[in-house]
Amino acid sequence: MLNNTLFFKTQDFKKITAYANRMNDELESGDIGYYHLVDTSFDLIKESKEFITTKTHIENIVLVGMGGSSCGVKALKELLFDQVEEKKLFIIDNTSSHTFTQTMQKINPQKTLFIIASKSGTTIEVISLFKLIIAHFNFKNENLHENFVFITDFESKLHKLGEELNIKCFFIPKNVGGRFSVLSAIGIVPLSFCGYDTKALLEGAKACYVDFFEKKCDQILQKAYHYCTHKSAHINVLFSYGDAFKGFNEWYIQLIAESLGKKQGFKRIGLTPVALIGARDQHSFLQLIMDGPKDKTVTFLKIKDSQKSPSIPNISFNHLQNCDFTNEVNLHDLLNAQCDATMHALIAENLSVDVIELERLDAYHCGYLMYYYELFTSACGIMLGINTYDQPGVEVGKLILKNMLSK
Amino acid sequence: MLNNTLFFKTQDFKKITAYANRMNDELESGDIGYYHLVDTSFDLIKESKEFITTKTHIENIVLVGMGGSSCGVKALKELLFDQVEEKKLFIIDNTSSHTFTQTMQKINPQKTLFIIASKSGTTIEVISLFKLIIAHFNFKNENLHENFVFITDFESKLHKLGEELNIKCFFIPKNVGGRFSVLSAIGIVPLSFCGYDTKALLEGAKACYVDFFEKKCDQILQKAYHYCTHKSAHINVLFSYGDAFKGFNEWYIQLIAESLGKKQGFKRIGLTPVALIGARDQHSFLQLIMDGPKDKTVTFLKIKDSQKSPSIPNISFNHLQNCDFTNEVNLHDLLNAQCDATMHALIAENLSVDVIELERLDAYHCGYLMYYYELFTSACGIMLGINTYDQPGVEVGKLILKNMLSK
Repeated sequence: MLNNTLFFKTQDFKKITAYANRMNDELESGDIGYYHLVDTSFDLIKESKEFITTKTHIENIVLVGMGGSSCGVKALKELLFDQVEEKKLFIIDNTSSHTFTQTMQKINPQKTLFIIASKSGTTIEVISLFKLIIAHFNFKNENLHENFVFITDFESKLHKLGEELNIKCFFIPKNVGGRFSVLSAIGIVPLSFCGYDTKALLEGAKACYVDFFEKKCDQILQKAYHYCTHKSAHINVLFSYGDAFKGFNEWYIQLIAESLGKKQGFKRIGLTPVALIGARDQHSFLQLIMDGPKDKTVTFLKIKDSQKSPSIPNISFNHLQNCDFTNEVNLHDLLNAQCDATMHALIAENLSVDVIELERLDAYHCGYLMYYYELFTSACGIMLGINTYDQPGVEVGKLILKNMLSK
Repeated sequence: MLNNTLFFKTQDFKKITAYANRMNDELESGDIGYYHLVDTSFDLIKESKEFITTKTHIENIVLVGMGGSSCGVKALKELLFDQVEEKKLFIIDNTSSHTFTQTMQKINPQKTLFIIASKSGTTIEVISLFKLIIAHFNFKNENLHENFVFITDFESKLHKLGEELNIKCFFIPKNVGGRFSVLSAIGIVPLSFCGYDTKALLEGAKACYVDFFEKKCDQILQKAYHYCTHKSAHINVLFSYGDAFKGFNEWYIQLIAESLGKKQGFKRIGLTPVALIGARDQHSFLQLIMDGPKDKTVTFLKIKDSQKSPSIPNISFNHLQNCDFTNEVNLHDLLNAQCDATMHALIAENLSVDVIELERLDAYHCGYLMYYYELFTSACGIMLGINTYDQPGVEVGKLILKNMLSK
């Protein structure tokens, strides 16, 4: 299970219960769709599996999506590195030429299924990349349905094109925002195609739902309350121990930054997420946390299970005997000890610290973790009094781009 | 060349000339070694090439190093993705078990040269990984010199071990700090082994040196002055356009965070670096910059040359005609237009913005860019009145770790 220990002062539950009620209201109103994906998305697994079993010749899946349409899938692919993919999953999440070119070089188009993912249906990067793929492999319109599927909103413009071209469409519920969509078709379809255990993913998320809404576990609310009321610490560092968390860190940044950075009249509100990889970044950002301004909270994220990790051998070299204290220590236990040591150093500096420990790194625990952070973000949004689910600030840039290129 | 345009108010040169003098003092004193690497490191290229030509059977180079001992090399490997490596370069920069295991699985030990890089000579992660490699491939002490080289300080404990075991050592000048060491043996040796154009790298850095110290170009000082005196904007965002900048972003974060986050008596000083990838993170962190608190400056980093990039084909789909404005646009030009559009949106919000444009992505321009940021960091350190080159805050955690594991 996921264990979250808070090393800062918590509140009497009565003080934060009003926020819990507000989240219940959001849940019951049905306006915020992601809450319900832990129940409704199971059908998608079946639909995805049935579709992909008819495509026995397909060896590669290429997901084309920006932001919320790729970020969560990338996170899960990296977290579940242990998994042997039934079909190889590639992700194109940028308009960077060499990534596009290199990915195209790696695949045989006849054995590849491309997923064009755009919630709005008109994400300019995704549609541009869609056209580039068509031209690169010289696909013909009448055959596109053999190599493409769409994931989009019901009745979006992309859905309408899909109907015309007989391309299979999977749908994101209209009331599920992009950055909260990992447990919708956006995540479930590509991951199910590739043989990931999406059932366990949803079950893990459901366990988090139950802990929060039914068992009334209060860590999420306590932490959100602390973050939203701790005026001087508005930078929230996630220190994830292990290289597998790189994609997850990016997902965390998108979720927090885009959800909680908002204007409210003339006021500008926001928490600034920073995400690090341990132990690596102990040799980087840590110095700033230790000695720089006390404007940061820190969450440590670690995995308990060290079964598959090798042990450091009992070798003692002349001159280097002072490094022998790690001899016979399991490498993953060393990583976790580094996490604990850094945590204690920060607690001693009186910084706001908490630690999340996952029992092991599998689909179930990843589902729990992602849902944990989604609920946490909703809780913060309610406490900050903002709209957590829109992103009005990025529209200006899109308009400027369109004007620039339309000339 | 590198073009840096500042979209914020600059100072009369007289006002900042005192800081320029202080940097000149640092340069001339010889205390800060990295300034001089643009002259002194050329000999290392020859030494590296002569060594590696005797190792014709070697196909893989594995660099083992933490923080400054790997970060810059990783950045350059990713920036110079175009380069065909004469020997394949792997980097282990963490105590993450699966990265270690996966890397070991990819290499044939008989055809591999391992570089153990530790400035102090006793970096616990590096020495632990060194022992793991020895045990994993069952190397014998008397043969280690065939498969290992060391990069370390002269007369460090690792150097002494190297002498005993007859292992070739390359040296980092004692007065070159880890995070400023990319142009020392730390970067030059592995990159020269793999056939990267390290001569052009140093020449590019030298061009930056000349622009700053001889031609008195003042952008670096102006920008540093703005960052250090703009009290409300203490988060410095680097928005790099293109996937090739991922490693460079991490290098930037280490350089700024570890150099500029310092205690000064009871005062805590520091600039907080955040690094993003465009256009991807326009769908992530951008919302927070646009609408959240105005506590951020933003540097846009882009590459002019778009020669190798494909053009978006002139395809018009029913329903998606409003996406046709990118038709016939070169993909890299689209990326740059996205950069410009975002920049104009932020300037309109009255944020502090500047843009760095590299003519193209080659070793020469990378050398210029890295030296630019090193000089920038030194300038900030002088203006903030701190010691830019130490990292006292990370020692506590190391001690706690040693105590924990020695029990």
